[in-house]
Amino acid sequence: MPSISNKGKQMPASPIRKLVPYAEAAKKRGVHVIHLNIGQPDIKTPKVALDAVRNHNIEVLEYSMTQGSEAYRQKIAAYYAKQDIFVDAEDIIVTTGGSEALSFAMGTIMDNGDEIIIPEPFYANYNGFATAAGVNVKPIASSIENNFALPPISKFEELITPKTKAILICNPGNPTGYLYSKEEIEQLAELVKKHNLFLIADEVYREFTYDGREHYSILQVEGLEEYAIVVDSVSKRYSMCGARIGCLISKNTEVISTAMKFAQARLSPPTFAQIASEAALETPQEYFDNVIEEYVSRRNLLITELNKLEGVKVATPQGAFYCVVELPIADADHFAQWLLESFVLDGNTVMVAPAAGFYATPGLGKNQIRIAYVLEKEQLVKAVQILGKALTEYNAK
Amino acid sequence: MPSISNKGKQMPASPIRKLVPYAEAAKKRGVHVIHLNIGQPDIKTPKVALDAVRNHNIEVLEYSMTQGSEAYRQKIAAYYAKQDIFVDAEDIIVTTGGSEALSFAMGTIMDNGDEIIIPEPFYANYNGFATAAGVNVKPIASSIENNFALPPISKFEELITPKTKAILICNPGNPTGYLYSKEEIEQLAELVKKHNLFLIADEVYREFTYDGREHYSILQVEGLEEYAIVVDSVSKRYSMCGARIGCLISKNTEVISTAMKFAQARLSPPTFAQIASEAALETPQEYFDNVIEEYVSRRNLLITELNKLEGVKVATPQGAFYCVVELPIADADHFAQWLLESFVLDGNTVMVAPAAGFYATPGLGKNQIRIAYVLEKEQLVKAVQILGKALTEYNAK
Ligand SMILES: Cc1ncc(COP(=O)(O)O)c(C=O)c1O
Ligand SMILES: Cc1ncc(COP(=O)(O)O)c(C=O)c1O
Repeated sequence: MPSISNKGKQMPASPIRKLVPYAEAAKKRGVHVIHLNIGQPDIKTPKVALDAVRNHNIEVLEYSMTQGSEAYRQKIAAYYAKQDIFVDAEDIIVTTGGSEALSFAMGTIMDNGDEIIIPEPFYANYNGFATAAGVNVKPIASSIENNFALPPISKFEELITPKTKAILICNPGNPTGYLYSKEEIEQLAELVKKHNLFLIADEVYREFTYDGREHYSILQVEGLEEYAIVVDSVSKRYSMCGARIGCLISKNTEVISTAMKFAQARLSPPTFAQIASEAALETPQEYFDNVIEEYVSRRNLLITELNKLEGVKVATPQGAFYCVVELPIADADHFAQWLLESFVLDGNTVMVAPAAGFYATPGLGKNQIRIAYVLEKEQLVKAVQILGKALTEYNAK
Repeated sequence: MPSISNKGKQMPASPIRKLVPYAEAAKKRGVHVIHLNIGQPDIKTPKVALDAVRNHNIEVLEYSMTQGSEAYRQKIAAYYAKQDIFVDAEDIIVTTGGSEALSFAMGTIMDNGDEIIIPEPFYANYNGFATAAGVNVKPIASSIENNFALPPISKFEELITPKTKAILICNPGNPTGYLYSKEEIEQLAELVKKHNLFLIADEVYREFTYDGREHYSILQVEGLEEYAIVVDSVSKRYSMCGARIGCLISKNTEVISTAMKFAQARLSPPTFAQIASEAALETPQEYFDNVIEEYVSRRNLLITELNKLEGVKVATPQGAFYCVVELPIADADHFAQWLLESFVLDGNTVMVAPAAGFYATPGLGKNQIRIAYVLEKEQLVKAVQILGKALTEYNAK
């Protein structure tokens, strides 16, 4: 029997994969599981996007252009211009989700054995894309003590080797909720220019910034044109994760023409999803105002409730819709499983994502979990209550 | 300025990429270009599939299951059962096109530097997926003289090294139109079992078989369960290339569980497209009968017309909707460009795909082109007339 590849063996499984059977078993026992573990918003998709698909008049569902339709890319550029980000339709490749943009970016700039530096904790699937591309992730720890701010530049420099090709940031961050300041972005820009590296920014949560803070894109840094690669997505912005549309953006024409070769191999991004995504650009501002208001009030409530629990520490997110929470326990993997296997409060329990899966350095984040506030407020309050009672019972054992 | 990867530099461009600007220039000059170069069928997508999307009642466009919805995979399994292919829903991962299934297959079974043997000429994007995965393609020539039948098994054995992990076939073939017989498939099965290799079969053209011949799938070979990996797609079957839905199928549980890790990294296949694809399974048999009838009559006409041209040789395709044509010229790249730049007949010219791009061995296929018969018969006849006149003029120069 032939054997699978080492690469395949090394591909990481999702951080919550081990928990899924326990969640299913709990549900079978009649326990209601409140999911704090997923990044799937409950927010409605803009009607204009869903209607556009309902009203399609396609007769032959053809391949679209490899780089996405000209009309759609023009409109994406116009959308960025409103945010003071100036790019042309030619700087954009429409991809099958931000996910595909991440793998195109890695393949375009890195060979087998090359290295990419990523502040941790980070979006767990970066590991998967890196492994698939044969790339080694060099993590650099950020800390809950200062809200997961950018680690000192000297720490980055310590990690740079001749194999280092890029730094990857997620801004605002999943799972940290941290929003990098203009100064932090400028420091990174200086660093990549000094060491001749690419800077990849995953900006899929760009719209979700709170407390009057503004997102500053790496595409806004003057002089960074040849170094900057942005990954974007409609998934979270319009609560349309199932569309599978994102894009890769760079002013570096060699990056775009090379990424195009990866794009050509897979032919085109999905057509119906492009119809939805193009229409979604017409979403009225009111929709976003309401969504942001909702996330802010959820966040505030969640943080307030969590801070009531003894021994619980939480970084205040200024963006996205996640937070990392430190618990007074030794092993969040064990606790998360115990919650599903052995704890019930009034017929409910919670499922959380153990944070260790978001760190590349073994041992880090073992007493942390990630919570996504994509649930209604009542559910969030109930979930934190359960968490509090559960911690008391767990620690009394 | 940081530089792109060697992998990126080596990524092949599409075989017709160089011709595109010449086609655009011809159109600008008012010349009508008949496209014989593309694999995008003109056949209408089944109404049942398009209507299902029109009637969607989605409010939150969520990520679907990573492996595709349970309901859809059950129905795919039922569809195969009707063709005497017996697989379970668990043996199937729904992918974003057959394209994604090809890259999952390569990543799952091969590491950087591993080798895959592929009879040439082959679907040009196999090169792209192999390069992206760091895999080396070892081509084995098949010949127009015997319709591109399976090369002798001894030729395969000559190419097998300790780095060989798999053999990849396309059945029926793009660009050859060749349909492997049961005996040929069984010979390959013996070969991979003897040398402990995987056998990947790209069966995206499965339905398109002519002259009463039946498709024999590698999934039908008894004892091949642990070795066989099939790539499939809705793109051509239902003329819905823009959906971007395909699947990877294997009874080898380690292959499926490993491919699932690649699938998890990219989250899920597109939701609207799955709705269309699931509904497409209800397409009445009549639709296929008509489509096959249409392709057969186009093929017959095309072959008849081509055979009237002096010095032109064509392999008779028994499947898919392509044929490879040998022309009395030295360099099809040059001829194809000349057709677009310098030839017009009654306001028309044709665009063909030079076949060299479908061969991995340098120098092979230089006097061949690929023609796709996805155009109406009148257009096909006109195109061959143009080709004939053009050849005369070109060779008179
Ligand atoms: C930080 C980050 N980047 C990228 C993605 C990929 O999203 P998609 O492929 O749906 O665009 C996600 C999804 O959760 C994410 O959280
Ligand atoms: C032989 C073959 N395999 C795979 C594909 C990929 O098709 P898709 O990704 O649209 O399923 C094609 C498309 O032309 C093809 O010809």
